Amino acid sequence: MHSLTVELGERSYPILFGRGLLRQKDILAPFLGRDGALVITNETIAPLYLDVVDRALGDYRVDHLVLPDGEKYKNFDTLNLIFDALLQDTHSRDTTLIALGGGVVGDITGFAAACYQRGIAFIQLPTTLLAQVDSSVGGKTAVNHRLGKNMIGAFHQPRAVLIDIDTLKSLPERDFKAGLAEVIKYGLIRDEAFFAWLEDNIELLLAGDEEALLHAIETSCRLKAQIVSVDERESGVRAILNFGHTFGHAIETFQAYREWVHGEAVAAGMVMAAELSARMGWLRQLDVDRIRAILLQAGLPVAPPQGISEQRFLELMAVDKKALGGVIRLVLLKAVGDAVVSADYDQSKLKEVLSFQ
Amino acid sequence: MHSLTVELGERSYPILFGRGLLRQKDILAPFLGRDGALVITNETIAPLYLDVVDRALGDYRVDHLVLPDGEKYKNFDTLNLIFDALLQDTHSRDTTLIALGGGVVGDITGFAAACYQRGIAFIQLPTTLLAQVDSSVGGKTAVNHRLGKNMIGAFHQPRAVLIDIDTLKSLPERDFKAGLAEVIKYGLIRDEAFFAWLEDNIELLLAGDEEALLHAIETSCRLKAQIVSVDERESGVRAILNFGHTFGHAIETFQAYREWVHGEAVAAGMVMAAELSARMGWLRQLDVDRIRAILLQAGLPVAPPQGISEQRFLELMAVDKKALGGVIRLVLLKAVGDAVVSADYDQSKLKEVLSFQ
Repeated sequence: MHSLTVELGERSYPILFGRGLLRQKDILAPFLGRDGALVITNETIAPLYLDVVDRALGDYRVDHLVLPDGEKYKNFDTLNLIFDALLQDTHSRDTTLIALGGGVVGDITGFAAACYQRGIAFIQLPTTLLAQVDSSVGGKTAVNHRLGKNMIGAFHQPRAVLIDIDTLKSLPERDFKAGLAEVIKYGLIRDEAFFAWLEDNIELLLAGDEEALLHAIETSCRLKAQIVSVDERESGVRAILNFGHTFGHAIETFQAYREWVHGEAVAAGMVMAAELSARMGWLRQLDVDRIRAILLQAGLPVAPPQGISEQRFLELMAVDKKALGGVIRLVLLKAVGDAVVSADYDQSKLKEVLSFQ
Repeated sequence: MHSLTVELGERSYPILFGRGLLRQKDILAPFLGRDGALVITNETIAPLYLDVVDRALGDYRVDHLVLPDGEKYKNFDTLNLIFDALLQDTHSRDTTLIALGGGVVGDITGFAAACYQRGIAFIQLPTTLLAQVDSSVGGKTAVNHRLGKNMIGAFHQPRAVLIDIDTLKSLPERDFKAGLAEVIKYGLIRDEAFFAWLEDNIELLLAGDEEALLHAIETSCRLKAQIVSVDERESGVRAILNFGHTFGHAIETFQAYREWVHGEAVAAGMVMAAELSARMGWLRQLDVDRIRAILLQAGLPVAPPQGISEQRFLELMAVDKKALGGVIRLVLLKAVGDAVVSADYDQSKLKEVLSFQ
């Protein structure tokens, strides 16, 4: 078992990595409060891992809540199911929520933990690659509002993140590949050597090689933890984690979240951001080609879907929350491994990228 | 104009006190963000003070939201009205919410500010005595859940609290007296000299004497600010602010929040807590009599309403969130001005107090 710490003073917490982690008895014990727990999962994950987690909890008092599966349930109604369960079973402020699932379960459970009795503890047990390398680390929690994704939420750090890569065996291939988009993102924004390693090992990862997977996941979490440690509430550098996301969110909104999954939209968005960076003279065209190549190898899109006009793209990007009420700030690359947040790009070059695709 | 600071490191903020404060042009300017504001008030307060606040905001971009008036609207549906307004008017994370009203408006606006885009700034403009001396200070925000009051919320400090005592002129007498219960509470839990001053000046306060009012409000806020500064998230001493509240909440729940207002229930609860303290040998009977006397002078109840059996009282107190899943901890008095949180009281003496009333 490997581990690293997200350094946040009194809110610091460990991330544990391993194979079969959830099958280790008492693995959860050090992170539980003194008054019970509520495991929150969804109908897809429950049959696969709920028993496993129950066994890891031993004799501890534990309740379960199984939510419907899907991004469309990441809303206030589902949030209230969690509050109902907590209050009906008289959970005190010393209880612990345990999020067992992907990003939706983690985000909504984390937000419930942030709000229940003004804040209780929670543990992340991410079961998708996307959740393992991104959403379970860093304390961003949220639900969606019908007028915008992740608009209502809180910064609330978990007490621990336990990453059992065995859970990836049950992950659909498409979701696994979408998770790789975020892994590749870390190399692009922060670590050129990691990006080069990914280029060399992408086939191993796609084949499910466990050593390679552990290295990719641990490196991704380490890079994210470093960024979160210096900018917990995204007042500065943390925004580089949104590389590809402003374009990606526009694509997802255009498709009403019904076609591509998040990682696919981010993959296309990263290519667009890289293209704009190259047109600004910041990134070599050779590097844009490398980015396209590795994403294609991973079976991910490298261009936006048909049918979004330049004008529509601009509108959709402007309602992304990072831009609300102001100029669109984008994460661009000065080089592979070196991202910046900037509003100082050439508007005409942005339009070229939007219409070129 | 007087002021004091709630000392909380980077979350420190001023409380300003005065007559006609809201009529001072640009009084709000130093506390606004760079991107607009949304004033949130209710249908009772809007006709009285919304124009006044608008003038104080000058040319600043400002939207309004007028909520229905009443505790029963302190819920998720009303919270969503705030989120709808913010998103429909495309408020960014640099906007500022301004809570103009009593405790309900302040609590729900504060919670909306805690959650919108994971946290934005807000300003408290409390217009009731209860909100001025209690709920607007200290960062406790919440909405009610059908299974419990204030169960869903956040600790989120305002950027400033502006207390204009002129707004008390429009406050119904009953609500004014209920606010006095919380003022008296501060003397009882923390400041014997202030309690003695209140005994000497209660008639002046009831007559609306402005100097006396300013002194009472400022002293209450100073005492609360000191407590909040050392225990922002109520892991210890802050719990003494709940003096009388566990009994009081039981009374309010028994009445389904339809008869007594909060301060009235707290007044009766303080007498019960003082009675138990005396029966434990901690407080002199003479002091219990003093407490009863000043509350009677203020026109407040000094005993619970008829019809709550001892058993029902215990059940209602046990579901108070401070007791969920464990023993009932009560705030008791070692002396006037010296409160403690304790589970080490004699259960039979508690039952005496509950059945004696």
